[in-house]
Amino acid sequence: KATAGLDGERCGCGGIEKEVALEAAPDSLLRDEIDEASGIRGRFERRIREAQNAICAAVEAEDGEGRFREDAWCRPGGGGGVSRVMQNGRVWEKAGVGVSVVYGTMPPEAYRAARGAAAVKSPSGNGASAGGVPFFAAGISSVMHPHNPFAPTMHFNYRYFETEDWNGIPGQWWFGGGTDITPAYVNEADMRHFHGTYKAVCDRHDPEYYARFKAWADEYFFCKHREQRRGLGGIFFDDLNHKPRDEIMAFSSDALGAVEESYLPLVRAHKGDAYTEQNKRWQAMRRGLYVEYNLVYDRGTTFGLKTAGRIESILMSLPLHARWEYCPDVEPGSPEAELVDACAHPRTWA
Amino acid sequence: KATAGLDGERCGCGGIEKEVALEAAPDSLLRDEIDEASGIRGRFERRIREAQNAICAAVEAEDGEGRFREDAWCRPGGGGGVSRVMQNGRVWEKAGVGVSVVYGTMPPEAYRAARGAAAVKSPSGNGASAGGVPFFAAGISSVMHPHNPFAPTMHFNYRYFETEDWNGIPGQWWFGGGTDITPAYVNEADMRHFHGTYKAVCDRHDPEYYARFKAWADEYFFCKHREQRRGLGGIFFDDLNHKPRDEIMAFSSDALGAVEESYLPLVRAHKGDAYTEQNKRWQAMRRGLYVEYNLVYDRGTTFGLKTAGRIESILMSLPLHARWEYCPDVEPGSPEAELVDACAHPRTWA
Repeated sequence: KATAGLDGERCGCGGIEKEVALEAAPDSLLRDEIDEASGIRGRFERRIREAQNAICAAVEAEDGEGRFREDAWCRPGGGGGVSRVMQNGRVWEKAGVGVSVVYGTMPPEAYRAARGAAAVKSPSGNGASAGGVPFFAAGISSVMHPHNPFAPTMHFNYRYFETEDWNGIPGQWWFGGGTDITPAYVNEADMRHFHGTYKAVCDRHDPEYYARFKAWADEYFFCKHREQRRGLGGIFFDDLNHKPRDEIMAFSSDALGAVEESYLPLVRAHKGDAYTEQNKRWQAMRRGLYVEYNLVYDRGTTFGLKTAGRIESILMSLPLHARWEYCPDVEPGSPEAELVDACAHPRTWA
Repeated sequence: KATAGLDGERCGCGGIEKEVALEAAPDSLLRDEIDEASGIRGRFERRIREAQNAICAAVEAEDGEGRFREDAWCRPGGGGGVSRVMQNGRVWEKAGVGVSVVYGTMPPEAYRAARGAAAVKSPSGNGASAGGVPFFAAGISSVMHPHNPFAPTMHFNYRYFETEDWNGIPGQWWFGGGTDITPAYVNEADMRHFHGTYKAVCDRHDPEYYARFKAWADEYFFCKHREQRRGLGGIFFDDLNHKPRDEIMAFSSDALGAVEESYLPLVRAHKGDAYTEQNKRWQAMRRGLYVEYNLVYDRGTTFGLKTAGRIESILMSLPLHARWEYCPDVEPGSPEAELVDACAHPRTWA
């Protein structure tokens, strides 16, 4: 049951029902009596399901030992999800890839979290009116944390949203997403490859996309309270609906399709690198900052916490280990200091 | 420079200036040309400084090896703080005790975080008016994480707030605070001692306090998204101004004075307990939940992040290590399951 405004934000309750575990992942997560497979909802759902299969297969092959565990669920009124998590693999400490489809109503505060503060329009002035915004959301989301401190953490998320008419606000649709990279140490060749891959994808769709979405990632993944980004960026976009829907869908699908090519070569190159205890300690501290970012700023996580989604799926992005030292020493000129500098002052990589 | 409303919330900037490190802790953190030592501000500041000295001395004595490092700072316009942190002691993995005094203006969003959502009155309807609420805040805050998984984590915070007249809202004063305990395993005798100590303190001031503030702690330390509390409670109160100021000050001071008596015997009793790797793993997972609580819900932390306070002091509450496993197994009937049950269903301990 939806509650509006501040109460919704405060109590964390949102507009979706409690999930029910399934024995196996269903063919489709959509309400089939409403959503045609040929429509945009059907096509997007199929695309993220396929991508989940392809990416998990490629990651298992690269790991060589770890296997993804699968958990599927649905909700009585429609929607559901499939989470896949590999824990304690040979190469990855923890890697999760989840898809989910939600039909619900969200409190205006959560609507703001989903669309960004700039988009909020609170028809009653203080957001305290009754009811909530009916919405459809489908997305794929992933974070992968390798063991080796020289192999980067990677995150991606691609999502499609629709809201229905509500309190005089007309229904809207938009795409959001991106892929970003979080190494514990700067490796320029890696970053040129990662960013170069997304620049090529972007350039195939719009010559302005890469510069715009690279800058957006640098802005979005900023940890204000640490005065630095959590990592070295990538692409990020949200509220995208400025072109025909099929064109943005094609771009989103291509960016999602570039995950293996952009990321796996970096892990392959560094999964066997020699490292010290100090390198692992530094990696754990950077993962602490990753936790801070996800719990304080990340739109998907804060949206998930507010809408009472499946908590283990929302928080599967958190690393297996994290560390917080008080006032850690970062020696000027050290590789650790270089990483902090690159996170504080975004560079051009492609 | 203060910014109002959503922007202030979103960008994290607040109404206080950047701190300047000091060589040594000053005698007083107050603006001495304004605040009389004999007034409430002066008396509260002196009380929390004394308590910091006494508690740190007692903890060092109990640890036997670790020493608190001290960092002091001030702000050009007045106010400042003294943080003391012990890391990698013999008994405590990390223990921090900080005092701070802030003169500032806060965006209405931060004002809500400080006073609780129920207290917000946004004179312009959507909180987007210019300026901010001028305030004075002084407080002491502490979290201590022992190594031994059978020795509990403890947190306390005692604070005094004043706001000045602003946009038609008259100035107010209030006290807040409390002490709460977060063990990884239930030990009934420990909990009877801890809660009993605060019940005795409360009873000396008001026969209704303990029941009310114990229930308030059970409500406040609830992690909605996990459907359980972070620990086994204690006392918590906020916005307290229903009696003459000196009476509430005396209660707050006595509760602060009970920290050593309530907590140190528990650590003394368990600092040498034998434990397994599984006990440490469980402790690290509970510390993961502690991190979630502090970054998502804790009023002091979210207030600190919004007002651009000294970040290392705000986050010194985070444990040295934390762990997040996906869908961890908690065997029914195990000591781990008992702890979860006690965190989900608060018990009467005193």
